[in-house]
Amino acid sequence: MEISKLGEFGLISHLTSRFTSVNSSTLKSVGDDAAVLDYAGKKTLVTTDLLLEGIHFDLVYTPLRHLGYKAAIVNFSDIYAMNGQPRQITVSLGVSKRFTVEMLDELYEGINLACRNYNVDLVGGDTSASLTGLTISITCIGEGEDGKIVYRDGAKENDLVCVSGDLGAAYMGLQLLEREKIVFAGDPDAQPDFTGKDYILQRQLKPEARRDIIEQLAAKNIIPTAMMDISDGLSSELFHICTQSKAGCQIYEDKLPVSLQTEAMAEDLNFNVVTAVLNGGEDYELLFTANLDDYNKILTLDNISIIGHITKPEYGLNLVGRQGEEVPLKAQGWNAFETNVECKM
Amino acid sequence: MEISKLGEFGLISHLTSRFTSVNSSTLKSVGDDAAVLDYAGKKTLVTTDLLLEGIHFDLVYTPLRHLGYKAAIVNFSDIYAMNGQPRQITVSLGVSKRFTVEMLDELYEGINLACRNYNVDLVGGDTSASLTGLTISITCIGEGEDGKIVYRDGAKENDLVCVSGDLGAAYMGLQLLEREKIVFAGDPDAQPDFTGKDYILQRQLKPEARRDIIEQLAAKNIIPTAMMDISDGLSSELFHICTQSKAGCQIYEDKLPVSLQTEAMAEDLNFNVVTAVLNGGEDYELLFTANLDDYNKILTLDNISIIGHITKPEYGLNLVGRQGEEVPLKAQGWNAFETNVECKM
Repeated sequence: MEISKLGEFGLISHLTSRFTSVNSSTLKSVGDDAAVLDYAGKKTLVTTDLLLEGIHFDLVYTPLRHLGYKAAIVNFSDIYAMNGQPRQITVSLGVSKRFTVEMLDELYEGINLACRNYNVDLVGGDTSASLTGLTISITCIGEGEDGKIVYRDGAKENDLVCVSGDLGAAYMGLQLLEREKIVFAGDPDAQPDFTGKDYILQRQLKPEARRDIIEQLAAKNIIPTAMMDISDGLSSELFHICTQSKAGCQIYEDKLPVSLQTEAMAEDLNFNVVTAVLNGGEDYELLFTANLDDYNKILTLDNISIIGHITKPEYGLNLVGRQGEEVPLKAQGWNAFETNVECKM
Repeated sequence: MEISKLGEFGLISHLTSRFTSVNSSTLKSVGDDAAVLDYAGKKTLVTTDLLLEGIHFDLVYTPLRHLGYKAAIVNFSDIYAMNGQPRQITVSLGVSKRFTVEMLDELYEGINLACRNYNVDLVGGDTSASLTGLTISITCIGEGEDGKIVYRDGAKENDLVCVSGDLGAAYMGLQLLEREKIVFAGDPDAQPDFTGKDYILQRQLKPEARRDIIEQLAAKNIIPTAMMDISDGLSSELFHICTQSKAGCQIYEDKLPVSLQTEAMAEDLNFNVVTAVLNGGEDYELLFTANLDDYNKILTLDNISIIGHITKPEYGLNLVGRQGEEVPLKAQGWNAFETNVECKM
C-alpha cells in the first residue's frame, strides 16, 4: 500500500495502533501535542539517536524488522548505561516514496518487539516524507534513582575496569555481511554462506541491551563508579571515561572477552582480532569501573570480565600484551564523519 | 572549516559549548549516555519533531539561524499547547558534506537564541554525516502541573472556541518566498521585493511560541478544556479537537483574526484569504476551548479571539460565512506525504 493513501495522521495511528503502554509512569501516550509522564520521586533520563540510511545501516542486508529492533535497543542501552531503566520512546521517521506501508509495518514490528521485551512504551513521534532514504530518530526516556545514577566521570585510581559479554562480534558480523554483499554484486546467483556464523550476525543485526547486568548489579548492591555502553568501540569508550574521570587505565589483552565465532571470522578474513575488540563498535555491552572493595561481589556476577584497572592520569591509557609489553591505546572509535569522508562520498 | 576536521565528538562539544543550562530540573546536560532531569512533583511532557530539507524547509530562502530558531520554537509550542513549560531539548542533526562548521554554528546560534528567549536547556543530541540534505530532529521535554495539563479531548458542548494572534500569515509569507524564488530563478539579477511584508516573512521564517498566552491563562486562573497549537492549519486542528472530544463546532468567518499584511498579500496573489486562514499551517498560534463561565475573563486577555463555539457532534464542523451561510469545514491541513506526492517527486 502506498503511504500517501493513509496520509500522515492515518499512518501514525496505523503504525502505533498495536502498541500498548505498560508503565505506570506513562499517563498519556501518542495522540496529543506531547506525551505526559509521571516520574514522581525519580530522576528522568533522556537520550536520543539518529540513524540514517547509507551511514548507519544498509538495507541491502538489514531486514527492516531487525533495524527497528536495533534502533530501539541502542537507545535502551544508553539508559542502562546510566544505571537506569528505559520507560518510554518517541520514534520519528522520514521515509521516501519507495517505502510501502507494509515495509514500515515490518520496521514497527521490530520496534514493538523491542518495547515488549524491555517493557518500554512508545509515546510519540513524527512521521514525514523524505526526498531520499530512510531516517530514524528515536528518543528514549527512562528513570533513575537518586544516588544510583552512574556517570562517566566517577572512575578512581585502582578501580576495576569491567565489561559485560564479549567484544568485536558485531564488527566481525558487519565484515561478513559486507563481504557477502560484494560477492553477491559480482554474481547475483551466489548464495551467502552464513553457516556457523549466527552469533556474529545476530550481534550486528539484532543486538540486545544489557538489562540483565543492571539487574545483577542492583541485586548485589554494586554501584559502579563510572559506566557507559560500548557503541563506538572499547578504546573510544575508555577514552571517554578516563578523560571525564581525569584518570588513566591499564588493560590486559589476555583478559579481553572474545567469542569463538569472532576469532574464527577474524582469522578467516585475516583480520587482527584485538583490533576488532578494541575498535569495533556496536557491541552494546556495558563498560564500567568499580571500587576494589566490590571485587569479590563482581566475581559472582555472570557475563562480566575484569579487564584491567584505573591508574593515575599521567600513566595514560595502556594495553598490556600477552608478552607483558605495554602499548598506548588509541581512540579509533567509529566516526560517522570520517567513514563518510573516506568511504562514501 | 570542514566538519571532518573536528570529528563527531569534537563537533558536538564545539556546537554545544556556548549553551548554558538555566533550569533547576537540568541535573546533567550534554556529555554522558543520557541527560538527567529532576521533575519531582511535576509531570513530564515529551514532544518531538523531525525536519527534513526539501520537505519542511528550503535553504534557498531560509537563513540557517532562522531555521534553528524555528526548529526549536515548534517544539516549545507543542509543550505550551499542553499548558506546560518547555525545559529541555535534545537536538540531532544529519548533515551532508556541503555543510561547513560555520554553517552549523549559524544553525546552533538560532537554536541557542530560542533556548535563551524561552529559558530552555539543550541537554543532548546526536550528530551524524548524511548522504543527502540536512535533517534536524528535536525532542523537547517540559513540565506540567497535576490537574492543569490540557489535552485535546476535553471540549464540551457550548464551550467557546478561541485562537491567539492571527492566522494565515505564515502561509502567505511562504507564498511570497516561493514567488520570489521563481522570479530569481528566471533572472539572477532580480532583487526580491519585500517592502511592507516584514510581518508575514517573520511569521514564516522566525515564528514565536505563545508562552505569553499560557502565562495570561495562568494569571487569570483559566484552564482551557482542550488546547493544541496550530501547525497544520485551523481546520485540521479543529478536526483533531472535535474528533478527540466527540464534538462538533460552529466557527464564524467574520471572527477569524487576520493581519493587514496577510490580507494584502492574499489580494496581491489573487488568493482567497479565508483559505489561507483555515488551511495555511505554521502559524504556531494556540487554539483552545474554554467553559462559557470563563467568558468575561477571556474578554480581558490580550491577543485572543473568540471564533465560535463547540456543538453536539451530530452538527459536524461548520463555518458560518459573512452572509450567515453555513458550509462544512474540511480538514485540508498540510500533509507532508501529499505535498511530496504532488509536488516533489
